[in-house]
Order: sequence, then structure tokens, then C-alpha cells
Amino acid sequence: MTAATPDRFRGVLVPASTPFKADLTPDSARFNRFCAWLLDEGADGLAIFGTTSEANSVGMKDRMRMTEGLVESGVPAAKLLPGTGTCALADSVELTRHAVELGCGGVLVLPPFYYKNASEDGLYASFAEIIERVGDSRLQLYLYHFPQMAGVGIPMGVIDRLLKAYPQTVAGLKDSSGDWSNTEAVIKNFPSLHTFPSSESRAVDALKIGGAGCISASANINVRAIRALIDVWDKPEADALNAKVSAIRTIMEGYPIIAAVKAVLAAFSGDQEWNRVSPPLTSLPAEKQAALVAALKAEDFSLSMPVSEAA
Amino acid sequence: MTAATPDRFRGVLVPASTPFKADLTPDSARFNRFCAWLLDEGADGLAIFGTTSEANSVGMKDRMRMTEGLVESGVPAAKLLPGTGTCALADSVELTRHAVELGCGGVLVLPPFYYKNASEDGLYASFAEIIERVGDSRLQLYLYHFPQMAGVGIPMGVIDRLLKAYPQTVAGLKDSSGDWSNTEAVIKNFPSLHTFPSSESRAVDALKIGGAGCISASANINVRAIRALIDVWDKPEADALNAKVSAIRTIMEGYPIIAAVKAVLAAFSGDQEWNRVSPPLTSLPAEKQAALVAALKAEDFSLSMPVSEAA
Repeated sequence: MTAATPDRFRGVLVPASTPFKADLTPDSARFNRFCAWLLDEGADGLAIFGTTSEANSVGMKDRMRMTEGLVESGVPAAKLLPGTGTCALADSVELTRHAVELGCGGVLVLPPFYYKNASEDGLYASFAEIIERVGDSRLQLYLYHFPQMAGVGIPMGVIDRLLKAYPQTVAGLKDSSGDWSNTEAVIKNFPSLHTFPSSESRAVDALKIGGAGCISASANINVRAIRALIDVWDKPEADALNAKVSAIRTIMEGYPIIAAVKAVLAAFSGDQEWNRVSPPLTSLPAEKQAALVAALKAEDFSLSMPVSEAA
Repeated sequence: MTAATPDRFRGVLVPASTPFKADLTPDSARFNRFCAWLLDEGADGLAIFGTTSEANSVGMKDRMRMTEGLVESGVPAAKLLPGTGTCALADSVELTRHAVELGCGGVLVLPPFYYKNASEDGLYASFAEIIERVGDSRLQLYLYHFPQMAGVGIPMGVIDRLLKAYPQTVAGLKDSSGDWSNTEAVIKNFPSLHTFPSSESRAVDALKIGGAGCISASANINVRAIRALIDVWDKPEADALNAKVSAIRTIMEGYPIIAAVKAVLAAFSGDQEWNRVSPPLTSLPAEKQAALVAALKAEDFSLSMPVSEAA
């Protein structure tokens, strides 16, 4: 592309889990400590308020309050890629503007996901209106394609039109479809985009053809190993590291992954406060938690997260 | 049930269309006039901020501002059944509390619709938490079942548990599935609920077995005729009226119905401001608008909505 884009995200980004208090409000203090730890472990960025973060179960005010709190706690805003795409244009604009004004490195934007079978014109307009209304040259927008969960995807034709209209702003894409042929096509068709598959098992495959790394739920529990893999992805030692992170990923995929991530954080840190999800999700049943922990231990998995002090 | 429930909704409720200004903010003045007219035409209630209202494209602040404006304009709050179900518990609580405090006759609540395949425990908890947190005996909650659009429905088991736990609060259900066997089962299994199919073509069928009427998109353009049908549903003249409203409904179903309703309001009132939808929806192409208007005129359809003064 024409302009230098040295600041766009690369490597492993963590869709950081959101801890909830017993009253189901998000726990800012615990979140701040967790995010600082993820960066210490080697995360290249934090995709806060993504699907794994249960963002869509968190109210508008809490999303903004939590992001502000994180920056106030000392986490560099440039490392943050908050999710800001909602069903409603005005809400998406409000969250996006808030993130840009805080200095976030980018935003990850779902299409409006209530009305199904939206046309390409309608989807294009949804993203274009956000960009126009925020109207800030600092905005770096990453498209969030997750058709199975959102019920609405981002077709190639929409990506193409957005890139042509806003080449400096449309910075990347997270492909959570799990459909490698789609990820491959996005990387090949749109080389200026920083494109991230949603699993570390595909990180090296993506990097080989010009992808940017991965943004993965299981990076919440395994970011150090994933970062180590990405640091040497084109070297001979990558194969063994890849096999190891993929084995952990495969175990996690045997469970509802959002609740599984929290169960692992709770079990390995000893901080049971982590083992709480917001409705409509439910925590893993105790026997599944035990089986998950046992399976990870059998792979010599460990977690260095310090036990949180009492909240 | 134990308590008298004289104030629960019955008859025809209109999921009132939301007019948008050129800047895509909702147009409060036009909305107020439209809602007053719908009540004059015979609407038994206004299910504002439903799917047809493009509620999920409207931001949180605008939803509350528009509802307040409507009440301030003189529309009785008791006639209002705003949609207040969002993906996020805190936002649903905020909208629901706001509606209750304004004196609204009820709220129509979608399940949290981002996370798919939610368990019955998770869905039950989502509704129960709203009820508990609002904590107001005036709350009358109508469940909104629309699995095709929301991607998340409300299973019978969840309805049953909610009714047992909150018999005074869980007041009704709108079934937008279009699956008559589901509507029939809800009416028969839960006779205390005021249950509404989403099409006037099924209003009489529902009333015959204890249903409450209908909440229908096309009531935006045909509420007078639907009300006339419901007023005589068990009399011999109902058949002819039913055939007439069903013919109009069938025409509307040939088009994307949210845009089609707005096209009809614009064409028959002469107020082209109505012919604007919010992304991700798109307006009907001109040739489809013309065909729709012609088809309605062939059925002797007319609309008495007065032309709005300039905004």
C-alpha cells in the first residue's frame, strides 16, 4: 500500500477473558492484572472485548469503563485492539470513537449481527458509516469475520470495497470462521491487510503466505508458548513448538472454549474467581473441569499466572 | 393464575416503524405523530423497538430518548411494549428499568442473541437476572421468540421455569417463528401467558384457542383493518375480513418486510422521509416499490396517514 503501516498489529494477540464479580459486573482490578501479565508473557497485543471476552454480554458503559481502567493501570493503549462492533450503528460509533480517543492501536469490528441476510451494500454501509462518523485519521479498523457466531459474515466483495474506499483505515481482519480456505483467500487477495486466523494451529500456515499471526482464545492460557512459536516460525525448531501448542489447542477445542479458558485460569492460578461466566454462558461442570485439567497436565501444561490477591 | 391481570395486552399491537433522519438518527417528532396515529387507527398497543422498528440498529441512548419523547408527547405509557432485550445483561436491565419507570405496559425481551447454542440454564438465567435486577413488581415481561432472526430461541423448558419462578411478571410471548405448531403449543401449554403470533393471518386461529391477538409488522400499514377483524373474530363476518387482511399480509411477505413497510408508508402518505432504513438494511429498489404499491392498490388498499408537516 501507499503509506507506511509500521504500527499495525502482528504476532499473537489475546482476546483477553473478562473476569466477573459475583454480581456479574466485570472486575476491573483483576482484569488489569491479567492483561499486564499477558503482555509480560509475550502477547503482542490484547484484543479485549472479543467473543472470548464475553464482550457481547457486557454493557456499553462497562466496556468503556474497563478499557479506560486498563489504560489508567498502565497497559499501553497502543497494545489494545478492543472489539467495538455492535448491532447498532450509534453504539459502534460510540465505542470506536472512545477507543480511538484513548489511543488504542486499533479496533476489531463485528458487522451488525441482528439482521440476517444483509446485502453487501448494507454491510459496506455499516462499516463505512462507522469510519465516516468517527472521522479520525488515527482509526485502524480490523474486520471481524465470525459467521457461525454472529450469523453475519464479511464477504470478499465488502472487504474489497472497504479497502478501496479507506485504504489507510482498514488495517486487518480476524477470521474466526475456522475455514482455512477463506483465511487463505483473504491473505492472498488483500495483501495490505493484517490477517489473523483464530487458532494458533494455523498461525504458521498464515505467516507462510503473508498472514500476520493469530488472535486465539487459547492464547489466554498459552500465550508464552504461542509467542515462542511465532518468533521462530520460519526456522527448523518451529515444527516441534507448533506440535506442542496445537496439542493444547486441540484439548481446549473439546470443550466450550470460553468457559474452558476460565476454568483453566481458575484451576492453574488457584483463583476461583476466574471461574465465572456471564449468562447466557454457563461454567463447565466440575467433572469436565477435572477432565480438562487432567488432559492439560498430561501434556506438561503449566501456567505461571500469579495468584491474585483478594479483590 | 392467582392474581388478576386485567392490564395485560390483547388485540393488535404494532411494532412501530422507526423513522430516521438523513443522518440516520431516529426522528422523534415524526415517530410521535406516527404512534399517535396508530393508536387513533385502533392499535391496542405499540410494540416499539421490535425487529420491524429496527431497534437493534438504534443505539442505547436513542432508544431511551425516543421512548421518553413518545410519553412526553402524550402517548400513554401503558400502551407501550418496548423491546428491551439486548445481548448484554447490563444493557437489557438498563432499558427494562427505564421502561418500567416510565410506566410502560410491558417490555418485549429477546434472549441474548450473540452467543449461539446457549443452554436452557443459561437462557433461564439471562431472563431471571433481568427480572431480579430490575426488581420491580410493575414489570410485565413478554418473551420474544424469533429464532430465525435472533439465532437463539426460547425453548418450552425455559418458558416453563420462568413462569413457575415469576408468575406475576412473565406476562406473555411473541412468537415470530412463523411456526404455527410452536404458537399452538405455547398457547395450550401456558394458558396464563398472553401469546401473540407475528402475523395477522394467524390472529383468529390464535384467538380461537386462547391466544391474545397478534403483533405484526404489517400492522404498521393496516392496523385499522386488523383491529376490525379482531373485534369480530368469533362472528360470521370475520371470514371476509380475515381474507382481506391476509391478502395484504401475503403481498407484504413477498418483500423484505421492514423496508416494504417503510416504502408503503412513504408512498401512501406522500412523506418520502419514511423511505429510509438504517444499515445493514437497504431500501427497496424503486421498481420493487412500484410493484408493491401497485399490488396493494389492486386490493383497494389505502392509508389514511396524514402527510407529515416538514420536520
